[in-house]
Amino acid sequence: MFTKVLIANRGEIAVRIIRACHELGIQTVAVYSEADREALHTQLATQAICIGPAKASDSYLNMTSILSAAVVTGAQAIHPGFGFLSENSAFATMCEEMNIRFIGPSSTIIDLMGNKANARKTMIAAGVPVTPGSEGYISSYEEAVAQAEKIGYPVILKAAAGGGGKGMRKVYQENGLEAAFSQAKAEAKAAFGDDRMYLEKIITPARHIEVQILGDSFGNVVHLGERDCSLQRNHQKVLEESPSTFISEETRKAMGDVAIRAAKHVGYTNAGTIEFLVDTEQRFYFMEMNTRIQVEHPVTEMATGIDIVKEQLRIASGEPLSFTQDEVVITGHTIECRINAENPALGFRPSSGKIDYLFLPSGGNGLRVESAMYGGYMIPPFYDSMIAKIITKGDDRSEAIAKMRRALQELVIEGVDTNQFFQEDILQDPNFISGDYDTEYLQNVFLKTWAPEEEESV
Amino acid sequence: MFTKVLIANRGEIAVRIIRACHELGIQTVAVYSEADREALHTQLATQAICIGPAKASDSYLNMTSILSAAVVTGAQAIHPGFGFLSENSAFATMCEEMNIRFIGPSSTIIDLMGNKANARKTMIAAGVPVTPGSEGYISSYEEAVAQAEKIGYPVILKAAAGGGGKGMRKVYQENGLEAAFSQAKAEAKAAFGDDRMYLEKIITPARHIEVQILGDSFGNVVHLGERDCSLQRNHQKVLEESPSTFISEETRKAMGDVAIRAAKHVGYTNAGTIEFLVDTEQRFYFMEMNTRIQVEHPVTEMATGIDIVKEQLRIASGEPLSFTQDEVVITGHTIECRINAENPALGFRPSSGKIDYLFLPSGGNGLRVESAMYGGYMIPPFYDSMIAKIITKGDDRSEAIAKMRRALQELVIEGVDTNQFFQEDILQDPNFISGDYDTEYLQNVFLKTWAPEEEESV
Repeated sequence: MFTKVLIANRGEIAVRIIRACHELGIQTVAVYSEADREALHTQLATQAICIGPAKASDSYLNMTSILSAAVVTGAQAIHPGFGFLSENSAFATMCEEMNIRFIGPSSTIIDLMGNKANARKTMIAAGVPVTPGSEGYISSYEEAVAQAEKIGYPVILKAAAGGGGKGMRKVYQENGLEAAFSQAKAEAKAAFGDDRMYLEKIITPARHIEVQILGDSFGNVVHLGERDCSLQRNHQKVLEESPSTFISEETRKAMGDVAIRAAKHVGYTNAGTIEFLVDTEQRFYFMEMNTRIQVEHPVTEMATGIDIVKEQLRIASGEPLSFTQDEVVITGHTIECRINAENPALGFRPSSGKIDYLFLPSGGNGLRVESAMYGGYMIPPFYDSMIAKIITKGDDRSEAIAKMRRALQELVIEGVDTNQFFQEDILQDPNFISGDYDTEYLQNVFLKTWAPEEEESV
Repeated sequence: MFTKVLIANRGEIAVRIIRACHELGIQTVAVYSEADREALHTQLATQAICIGPAKASDSYLNMTSILSAAVVTGAQAIHPGFGFLSENSAFATMCEEMNIRFIGPSSTIIDLMGNKANARKTMIAAGVPVTPGSEGYISSYEEAVAQAEKIGYPVILKAAAGGGGKGMRKVYQENGLEAAFSQAKAEAKAAFGDDRMYLEKIITPARHIEVQILGDSFGNVVHLGERDCSLQRNHQKVLEESPSTFISEETRKAMGDVAIRAAKHVGYTNAGTIEFLVDTEQRFYFMEMNTRIQVEHPVTEMATGIDIVKEQLRIASGEPLSFTQDEVVITGHTIECRINAENPALGFRPSSGKIDYLFLPSGGNGLRVESAMYGGYMIPPFYDSMIAKIITKGDDRSEAIAKMRRALQELVIEGVDTNQFFQEDILQDPNFISGDYDTEYLQNVFLKTWAPEEEESV
């Protein structure tokens, strides 16, 4: 096992990783930007090194600074957390070249899965169901009509070279296709110098359900069940739970099997997540693979009792998985609420500043809080707005919800706006309580009628 | 199920019970002394009623005030927590008479188990092994000599009417017996007007190992495994763990069986603990039964996943146990450290005052903090010095210890002295780490050589 690990991240995930390292007797090196001198990860780590100015591109994305910090401190491995450099194959390659272990899959796999078209091809080859779509590129409007007819509306036109939503158009019926096709092509040409297009079916209504997997360097792969992350706003997950209220035992098993097959097909190592869309008929379609630890990993940890971050460290250090698929037992029901520094009553406007007073809920079985906050902490305006995750586990879903309500009632964060009351209102929503929601629900239904309490809007 | 419960206690156990009630959808009534106006239990409960001055005899022990508060608020049941009125059969009787459910066993059982001589007789009748001792009372010095000879030294003389250590003498060999016998008799006569004496063997070295049981109103009794509470100072438990490192599987099973037999024999209902002393040969002897929730109950909750406080509420409301003995599964290893406001470097002098700054550890699977503290809270000088309990669970004992070390390193309590560094030193002690300790170890071995760090003594 490593004796010293550098954590190339900040906030709650950096703290989470530092804690796991310390529990394994591993020394830690925190890297921090000038805005994070007083941050909790900076304080908790064995050593801390400033790697640059507040702006992420000058610090948390500065590969040279981070690698220098690793060399100077003698760290044998780097844990990238999520975001920042976690899915940057160039960074993983640099680590490999410098003989510093990148805690994640190989740069080749990061690369493969990072390219949507390649990932899709690979999954088809592995026998993983993907969204119905055109085989290869669409050369003409007439071909677009034929393909769309074949797979059925609604469809989405996507630029082969696409990214950031550019060169994408949703089409709901044939009479919108012609204009969409020419606009998308023009946009793609302008943005990427490449107007090759392909076409996919839009799965709607759908649930976003993802399967957590772990693979070691000996070819062993297990899955740790699913997380239902359908409650989203602007493609950001808001609340996650496991098991999903939606899928049948049969679908659950099929998704787990497919996830393992996909991971084995590419020789996947370390922790990863395969995201699926599941339609109303319980058909599931590969969406993407995240080749890193995810924000919502504690849901699976509480559900299974397995410490995914510790497993990442063990796998990266060359240990085999210490358990088999049969030994993975999911019990009870687990829910996570993300607490963001933002004001839902003002269009979710981000908030930053000093936390004048903090009371985090605690006590009882089955409650976990992941956060890098402390009383007096100054939330900098430069980074992600997520400031805490509250995770509760109950014998059943209604107990998990009851615990979450209790926790949110206790939570006190003074000095910045948070989405706490928004989460409390979700937990009271009849559709959420009955488990009846899809990926569009929060945005297109709940928020359409949601009225924050007068006193709650700051 | 009840819709409103009064909690006749304060501090972390009151908060613990309030949280369990709220998670079950039960409204809560806190009672508080004038010193506890700003206490967390006062703030978290649905309603809060002041029941008198700071002195416990005027408030938390004031049965009339508490019962009046229950009547005024319409509480259907009273949870007494531990300490205060929790083992007061007169209070339980008053509750019964006023048709308010006392959350615990019947007053008859509290009475029976509260009287040491009766409890011993009852246990003998139930076939529970008790410490070897005289049959009935000792009428003369000559009989004392004969009985002591028969059971073997060391022995302890006890007053039949005893309590608070009065009329007790330890005798290590015959030549100390005569003086001890007359002194103890005289002391008992003076204290209780009753100089009847009996004699018991002192089990030493011994482990203090207790079995948690739960019984419902339908005659079902289960045990939830044991807690090893041998690390004590002045008969106060300091650190508890489960499973015990000491007993064999055979002894464990035998103790569980005996605990169930004892509970069934008396028709025990609700939560209770049977405390045993276990000698070096794994023989175990009944010590006493606690007819209430105990401080260290979270150890068993983490070990089994069962919420004992919620079970107490369910049982008291007339529900049957929702699980059988076979369904009780103990996993991993759990440890609890008690955090007291006291200075171990100054003879464990109690400390009180304002908590200027508080940071409670959190994060990761298997860490739980039970406390009624918050930043700015004023610890009153009137009550018990225990201010927090930290509980960690690992896949094995060394992981549980590693998590506890990590938690204690993170814990920050500024403004009062605490035993935090004392607990940290115990966790580094080779004898503790190897599980090699008995009830005398902390006091007679560890503390004899323990030298607090210069900087740590305030």
